[in-house]
Amino acid sequence: MAASRGVRHDAMRARNMAVVLGAIHRTGPLSRAALAESTGLTKTTVSKLVSDLLEAGAVSERGAVRGGERGRPGVAVSLSGERVAALGLEINIDYLAACVVDLTRAVRLRRTRTADNRNSNPGDTLEALRRLADEVVAEAAADGLRVIGAALAVPGLVEGGLLRNAPHLGWRDVRVTGLPDVPYTIDNEANLAALGELWFGSGAADFLYVSGEIGIGAGLVVDGSLFRGAYGLAGEIGHVVVVPDGPPCRCGGRGCLEVYAGQDALLTALGDAPADPPAEDPPAGLRGDVPAGLPGGGTAGVAELVARLEAGDGEALAACDRAGHALGVALTSAVHLLDPGRIVLGGVYAPLFPWLSGPAAETLTAHLGHLRATPELAVSQIGSDAAVLGAAGLVIQDLLADPVTVLGL
Amino acid sequence: MAASRGVRHDAMRARNMAVVLGAIHRTGPLSRAALAESTGLTKTTVSKLVSDLLEAGAVSERGAVRGGERGRPGVAVSLSGERVAALGLEINIDYLAACVVDLTRAVRLRRTRTADNRNSNPGDTLEALRRLADEVVAEAAADGLRVIGAALAVPGLVEGGLLRNAPHLGWRDVRVTGLPDVPYTIDNEANLAALGELWFGSGAADFLYVSGEIGIGAGLVVDGSLFRGAYGLAGEIGHVVVVPDGPPCRCGGRGCLEVYAGQDALLTALGDAPADPPAEDPPAGLRGDVPAGLPGGGTAGVAELVARLEAGDGEALAACDRAGHALGVALTSAVHLLDPGRIVLGGVYAPLFPWLSGPAAETLTAHLGHLRATPELAVSQIGSDAAVLGAAGLVIQDLLADPVTVLGL
Repeated sequence: MAASRGVRHDAMRARNMAVVLGAIHRTGPLSRAALAESTGLTKTTVSKLVSDLLEAGAVSERGAVRGGERGRPGVAVSLSGERVAALGLEINIDYLAACVVDLTRAVRLRRTRTADNRNSNPGDTLEALRRLADEVVAEAAADGLRVIGAALAVPGLVEGGLLRNAPHLGWRDVRVTGLPDVPYTIDNEANLAALGELWFGSGAADFLYVSGEIGIGAGLVVDGSLFRGAYGLAGEIGHVVVVPDGPPCRCGGRGCLEVYAGQDALLTALGDAPADPPAEDPPAGLRGDVPAGLPGGGTAGVAELVARLEAGDGEALAACDRAGHALGVALTSAVHLLDPGRIVLGGVYAPLFPWLSGPAAETLTAHLGHLRATPELAVSQIGSDAAVLGAAGLVIQDLLADPVTVLGL
Repeated sequence: MAASRGVRHDAMRARNMAVVLGAIHRTGPLSRAALAESTGLTKTTVSKLVSDLLEAGAVSERGAVRGGERGRPGVAVSLSGERVAALGLEINIDYLAACVVDLTRAVRLRRTRTADNRNSNPGDTLEALRRLADEVVAEAAADGLRVIGAALAVPGLVEGGLLRNAPHLGWRDVRVTGLPDVPYTIDNEANLAALGELWFGSGAADFLYVSGEIGIGAGLVVDGSLFRGAYGLAGEIGHVVVVPDGPPCRCGGRGCLEVYAGQDALLTALGDAPADPPAEDPPAGLRGDVPAGLPGGGTAGVAELVARLEAGDGEALAACDRAGHALGVALTSAVHLLDPGRIVLGGVYAPLFPWLSGPAAETLTAHLGHLRATPELAVSQIGSDAAVLGAAGLVIQDLLADPVTVLGL
C-alpha cells in the first residue's frame, strides 16, 4: 500500500519540508515528537528536515514544550523572525513605499516617500524605487535579516509579470527591472492590499477589499485565498458602470465608479485638485520622507477634506455623499457577482469612512432589495499600508508553500 | 522517509481509489502496469483497487493496450458507461426536466415537461418532479443503469441545501424532499448550466456562462472550476445595476439587468407576455411532454419572437437591441470584476444570439475602453439543456473525486 513508489526523493523532500514548516506555522512551537505525530512522518525524517530549516534560519529551537503522545517534554521548534525576511515595495501615484517583514510576519521596517508619479518616466521612478529598496535591504541586513524575495505593488493591470496599463501613472507595457538582486514578483495594488488586510488587518477570511485611491481597485478574498480571475485582472471595481451614459472616464469608458468616487473626483468637487494635472507639473521625483502611515500620499488634499468634513463643511459633506452613493451602486453589482463576506474600505476610504460608509450602505441596501442581506461595511485596519504589507506577506506565503525552492535548501 | 505513517488505511485506500479512477478518466484505457507506473502505486495495490472498481461497475476491462515501461501488452481498463449513472433534475419557471448521464458523461435519457411553476405550491411541483424522476430512473434501470446520485437545478438562491429565494417561482426557504431514494444536492441553475457548458458544451476551461431565462443568472468557470463566492451566491448578473434609478425589479431593487433583458422584458416589449401572470392563471401542473431541447419552456413566446426577428419585424428588433445594450452594460461590470475568459450566452439567449450579441458586444467594447480587450461572445452549444446536464455532470464529478464514498466501495 506504499503511496510513495515512483515519487522522486527530491519532490518528496520538498513536499515534506513544506508540511513540517506549515505545521510549525499553523500550530506554533512544537517538539520534534509532536511534529512527527501531527505530520505522519518518522522522527528521523522530521529531525533531518528541522536541521535544514534551522540552518537556513527559518526556524529556531528554544525552551521546552510537551512532546508527542507519550507526553515527554521536548525542545520547542518555532518559526524564526531573526534571520529571514521579505521585501514589500509599492509604486503609487503620489508616493513610493517599502517595508521589510520577517518570517513571523512581524513588520520590521516601513518607509514611505512622497513622489509625483503621474505621467512619469518609468526609468526614473524605478531608479528612485531601487534606491529606496537598497536602503531598506541594507538596514535589514544591519539587523541580521536576509531578504529572500520581493513583491511590488503597482496601480494598474499586471499580466504575466508585465505592467500592462497604469492609466494614472501614464505607463503601458512596462517590464520592471533593476530592483535589488532578489527574486521578485509584481502585482496589482488592490490584490496585494487585500492580502495585506488578510494577513495584517482584521484576520477575516472572506471579504472584498476596496482600495480607494486616485484609482479604485478591489481584491476579493474567499476562504483565505485571493480570487484572480482568468487572466489575473479581476476586481477592477473602479470601472464598474454606475451610469451607462455618464461622463467619460480616463479608461475610455463612460460613467465608471472612478468618475464619481475616485480621490480626484472627491477633491475636484472641493476645487482642491485638478482631475488632470496641468502640463507644467514638476517631473516625477522624490520630495522627501513622510511618516509611514495613512494616507501615504495625496495627504494634503485628503487631510484637508477630512478637516472640512469634521468641521461640518456642506460642500465636503455633499462630495462624500455623492461618492458614497456611487460606491453603493457599484458595490451592489459587486455583491451580486462576487458574493463577498464583509466589505472592507481601505486607502483614502479609511479616513473618509465615517462620511462615506453611511450613504454607501444606504444605497447598497436599497438596491440589494430582498434577495440577500447587506454585507457589513468595515474600515481597513491598516489603511494605505495595506498594499506594501501585502506584497511582503505574499513573499512569506510563497516561502511557507515551498521553502526548499525559496530558501534554496 | 515513508510519508504514510499515521495516515489511516481507509483514508489512504479512498485517496488511492480516486487517484486510479482519475488516471483512467483523464488518460483513457490503461493497463494495470501503466496505471501502476503513472500513479506511483504498486501493481498489487492497483490490482486490488481495479477489482473493486470492476465489481462496482465503474470500470470495465476489454481489449489489449501497451503496458508499462517494459512495453508488454496488458488488458485495457477504461471507464464503464454500462452500469453506473447520475440523475440530473431541473425545476424552471415553465418546465421540469430530467436526464440520465452515465459515468463516461454520455447522455442516456432526457425528458422535459412544460409546467407553469410561477407562484406554484412547492409540494405540488416537487411531487410532479418526483414522478418524472421515478420514470427516468426506471427507464435507466431497464437499460442496466443504476442511478447513484442526483442533483437538482433551481432558478434561485441556494444556501446550505436550502432554496432560500426563487422570486419567479414565488418560493422562499424551501427544503427539497421526496425525490427518488438516492443522495442528492440542490444548486442554482446558472451555476449548474455553467458546469453543463464546461462538460457537455464547448470544452473551454475559462468562461462566464450567462443564462437568459425569465431570470438571468451567470456561472463563472475559472480553470475548469466553478467560482461560488463566500456563501455560494455568486454570479447573480440579473441584478447587476444597469440604471441606478431605473424601474423597480422584482428583487426589490431598481434598474437591474433583468428589468431590461429578462425573457419577460423581451416578450412584454412585444405585447406577448405579461410581466406578472394574472391571478386566474391555471395552477401549476404538467401540460404534457415537449421535445427535449431548447428552449425548454416559454417556447411559444420565444419561438414567436425568433420568427418575427427572422422576418425583420421592427418592434422585435428594437426589443433585442435594447436588451442587448443593457446586457452589454452589465457585462462591462462583470468583466471588470470577474475577469472571465470568453462569455457564453445560453438559455433563451441561445436562439436570440444573432440579434442580441451584436448590440451587447458593441456596448461592452465601448464601455471597456482601452483597459482590456473585449472577451469573445459565444453562443451556448447546449442551450436550455445546460442546467439539467450540468446537474448530472456534477454527480459524476463527485463520484470521480471520491468513488469510495459515492459508490459505497
